[in-house]
Amino acid sequence: MGSDPILFQEIQEQPDVIARFWQDGQGALDELVAGMRVADIRQIVIAARGTSDNAARYAQYLLGANNRLPVMLTTPSLFTLYQRPPLFAPGTLVLGISQSGQSPDIVSVLAEGKRQGHMTAAITNSEASPLAQQADHVVSLGAGRERSIAATKTYTAQLFAVGLLSAHLAGDADRIETLQQAPSLMRQTLAMNGDVERLAERYRYMRNCVVVGRGYNYSTTFEIALKLKELTYTLAEPYSSADFLHGPVSLIEPGFSAIVVASSGILAPEMRALVEQLRGLRAELLCVSSDEAILETGRSRFPFPPVPDWLSPLLAVVPGQLLALYLALARDFDPDHPRGLSKITETR
Amino acid sequence: MGSDPILFQEIQEQPDVIARFWQDGQGALDELVAGMRVADIRQIVIAARGTSDNAARYAQYLLGANNRLPVMLTTPSLFTLYQRPPLFAPGTLVLGISQSGQSPDIVSVLAEGKRQGHMTAAITNSEASPLAQQADHVVSLGAGRERSIAATKTYTAQLFAVGLLSAHLAGDADRIETLQQAPSLMRQTLAMNGDVERLAERYRYMRNCVVVGRGYNYSTTFEIALKLKELTYTLAEPYSSADFLHGPVSLIEPGFSAIVVASSGILAPEMRALVEQLRGLRAELLCVSSDEAILETGRSRFPFPPVPDWLSPLLAVVPGQLLALYLALARDFDPDHPRGLSKITETR
Repeated sequence: MGSDPILFQEIQEQPDVIARFWQDGQGALDELVAGMRVADIRQIVIAARGTSDNAARYAQYLLGANNRLPVMLTTPSLFTLYQRPPLFAPGTLVLGISQSGQSPDIVSVLAEGKRQGHMTAAITNSEASPLAQQADHVVSLGAGRERSIAATKTYTAQLFAVGLLSAHLAGDADRIETLQQAPSLMRQTLAMNGDVERLAERYRYMRNCVVVGRGYNYSTTFEIALKLKELTYTLAEPYSSADFLHGPVSLIEPGFSAIVVASSGILAPEMRALVEQLRGLRAELLCVSSDEAILETGRSRFPFPPVPDWLSPLLAVVPGQLLALYLALARDFDPDHPRGLSKITETR
Repeated sequence: MGSDPILFQEIQEQPDVIARFWQDGQGALDELVAGMRVADIRQIVIAARGTSDNAARYAQYLLGANNRLPVMLTTPSLFTLYQRPPLFAPGTLVLGISQSGQSPDIVSVLAEGKRQGHMTAAITNSEASPLAQQADHVVSLGAGRERSIAATKTYTAQLFAVGLLSAHLAGDADRIETLQQAPSLMRQTLAMNGDVERLAERYRYMRNCVVVGRGYNYSTTFEIALKLKELTYTLAEPYSSADFLHGPVSLIEPGFSAIVVASSGILAPEMRALVEQLRGLRAELLCVSSDEAILETGRSRFPFPPVPDWLSPLLAVVPGQLLALYLALARDFDPDHPRGLSKITETR
């Protein structure tokens, strides 16, 4: 395996990373949850960028639906460039999510939250980072150093931490147990997608695509699109299937590529209708799904095991990571060193 | 002018529409502001889709910076498909923004807000719509019927209404007076961009582009990208300049088109650095700006008059609307009837 790209190794490491977090990470989550109870937290403001912002999108749906907590994704420039941050209501937790914990704008949001007297927390892979220093509670991902520039294992570790946070907040032992199964479900997903290297060949000359999903997997559409952009320079645009029908559907002409992300839960009927509409427009369909009927409509199929809708983003992103990796290789790009990017991006 | 597309006429009508709102719309805003004071509103949740969601993005920045109000853009599927809406804290206003006021998911968010006992309001062009019926306060845009499928005059009317709402909330007579000048500034912008028909020819074969901006004009990048997608089927992806540097910058290769939206305010230094970076990557630059130095870097230039940063989105979108119109015509597309779209999109 020595000659495999680091990115391949880090994608394969993911089940072990979340298994380790299940063992080592829950103590910090319990402390955070206890702190949230004391502070009577009623809403959460999240600051994040890039891949971490996609984990924040997942948190918005999961903490909303499962814990009924309103989650606001904040606008860092109000805190930095404009220096006119909003004043958060009492009962707000200000949460930063960042692999490196370095980006000054994300750090600024936590610092301002603190200044306003709110509780702060960080989910990060770097316990010693400036972000962690601003946080009352640090949830350390323990994913090990991520050497590839494109984030993979830290993304799924962030999703997993958010999933466990939600379960602990709800005191839901069933969900915690379900999350214990996640590493083996993720191994299964990796095994089910052993043919992605072969499938990727077909997309060697794909310049554009859309990535469409909804609900919990809205996050997955953003993350798959970001991996395709970073690693393969494909102009991949993510959409909620509802927003997609409010305009961008007009982009679709015969042969246009659409990656559809759909779990087998409550959204499946809507997603089945969407793939039928896309078939009617003669789109090239790439289906990332646990729903047999949806998978069958795909010219290319990327399955994952049927799991509760709320858990599916942890699995659904995996074939997308593999597709981005193998498409980069099919194009003779170096997946470990995408052009124009560095591991830590500092924005203000 | 009889043979001009309806879209052209509606773009030209925009100064008159906002002048009329300045006359007729402020009464409803005063009532809304009085209601917000009585209810001690401390944060706003907005539900919107498509173009209206871009007006919501503007509201998030403007009400945040000028009124220090946290604004959350909500996730309608939690209210409809999942039926697990978040529980909003006391002091929340639930605001729907919609041209037609018809989309069931947006109506559902207001209905749930009401059920939870929160104040509700609607900014809409249809006073008799289902959305208006769920609202304690209705701000009617009075833009006249919008016949073109692509929204233009209702978008700028929404921005203008949000601008006036912010000024009234702050009791800021200077801003209200500045807003009175907006119709003539918008006429000036239309006049300054009389050459867009000629400029558009160059982009006849452009398949992709990115649209980059930040802060208040983050909204403008989304709206220009949406017009280009709806009307010209260009795969145009919007970015905040900060998010852009966290990954998608790797897309840029020599000749790749980047539309940069930049006002002359506090963000100008950052935007000047961005255009320099894009020039270094040999991107084709289309500059929508009121800053001379930025305009000069553009292969194509779309000027608007220098105004305070917070007001600039009302003007900056106008050349983008014109570009989308004339690019559709250059491609022999019918700008009044984009394929696959209808005026009212009902999503759940």
